[in-house]
Amino acid sequence: MTTPCIITVAITGSVPRKEDNPAVPITVAEQIESTQEAFEAGATIAHVHVRKDDQTPTSDPERFARLGEGLRKHCPGMIIQFSTGGRSGKGSERGGMLHLKPDMASLSTGSCNFPTIIYENHPTLVRELADKMMEYGVKPEIEVFDLSMLYQALRLADEGVLTKPLHVQFVFGVKNAMPAIRDVLAFQVSQLNKLMPEATWTAAGIGRHQLEVNRWSLELGGHCRT
Amino acid sequence: MTTPCIITVAITGSVPRKEDNPAVPITVAEQIESTQEAFEAGATIAHVHVRKDDQTPTSDPERFARLGEGLRKHCPGMIIQFSTGGRSGKGSERGGMLHLKPDMASLSTGSCNFPTIIYENHPTLVRELADKMMEYGVKPEIEVFDLSMLYQALRLADEGVLTKPLHVQFVFGVKNAMPAIRDVLAFQVSQLNKLMPEATWTAAGIGRHQLEVNRWSLELGGHCRT
Ligand SMILES: [Zn+2]
Ligand SMILES: [Zn+2]
Ligand SMILES: [Zn+2]
Ligand SMILES: [Zn+2]
Repeated sequence: MTTPCIITVAITGSVPRKEDNPAVPITVAEQIESTQEAFEAGATIAHVHVRKDDQTPTSDPERFARLGEGLRKHCPGMIIQFSTGGRSGKGSERGGMLHLKPDMASLSTGSCNFPTIIYENHPTLVRELADKMMEYGVKPEIEVFDLSMLYQALRLADEGVLTKPLHVQFVFGVKNAMPAIRDVLAFQVSQLNKLMPEATWTAAGIGRHQLEVNRWSLELGGHCRT
Repeated sequence: MTTPCIITVAITGSVPRKEDNPAVPITVAEQIESTQEAFEAGATIAHVHVRKDDQTPTSDPERFARLGEGLRKHCPGMIIQFSTGGRSGKGSERGGMLHLKPDMASLSTGSCNFPTIIYENHPTLVRELADKMMEYGVKPEIEVFDLSMLYQALRLADEGVLTKPLHVQFVFGVKNAMPAIRDVLAFQVSQLNKLMPEATWTAAGIGRHQLEVNRWSLELGGHCRT
């Protein structure tokens, strides 16, 4: 018996622009088309950000609504995950689309350094986003950019603020956050297996670390993220 | 052959006030007296913060100068470590006393959540404080509140921004940062031993975790912090 592999596809992200890569889907129509291709190729979860007309990231609920509708129509059965990432808005704005009830939404459970900024997830904001996800029945994907974020998520689950079992994503290769080190993923997975054996997890490597981290993830029993 | 145990004493910290504990040394005179007692009892390193007359933390160089002079006089040979912690000032201010050339100064190499705030150590500030410590010949004590801070310190040492070998302190039990988990300390120590075997380290548990973490530290071959 094998557990089916969950493949998450992150089609746009919040940073790359058409100037960097003409293939990056920016408009809602481009995002739907690109996700449909991934869905037909076997992807299970679509992790999505939205952009303004000038390509800058936003958490505008109207754009998320159009994208969500298009994905439900063109990728029936695909799990839709909205990003509440910090580049898309300030504070509470980041959860301003959760009332649209996507299947999932990302949730960072701590703060850390990023290449040129502090990635700010104040304890109050973490709690507020978690409460909203609970209210709207949205399953969080816990984004672990540094080890303590794993323990904070486990604590929030114990306190009933997050629903068990957790789905966790370990992120590697963001400059000034966690470098891509296999020992770290192995340790994180061993801790998650010990403290919440029923949890599911993926690992993501940014940029040049993507394939390497996917390989570790498969070797250690996790799911895949592109 | 045994390596002598380095005992670091943190006499004041930045948070507790006379109202919380009348024994907390607040004035420079009280701090000198209290450190001298610890020195005579065997402490090797004094980790010090300074306070304003209203007891709030500050990084005022004039107070650090008076404290440093008093400690050199009353505790000859003791290693004096100034805190550049975030509660004592904003941004560059936090290193405003490094020109006094204490033997050591604390340096956090990343950001994380604290009980009610984001502990902000922007990559630019980390670099700036590290450069100043290099300029004035001050040895940093790397404060690791979350795992990635260890790797960031190792990277800065590889880049020549920090002098090798590092002296690292692993901090546990700060709410919203790293909980006191022995597996985590064991992993951190194994990584440090692997990546920089010549480094030295201590572990500190905040509040009720202090004795427990000291015990782990001794068991795992580290030094002591009170
Ligand atoms: Zn994302
Ligand atoms: Zn998989
Ligand atoms: Zn301190
Ligand atoms: Zn010791």
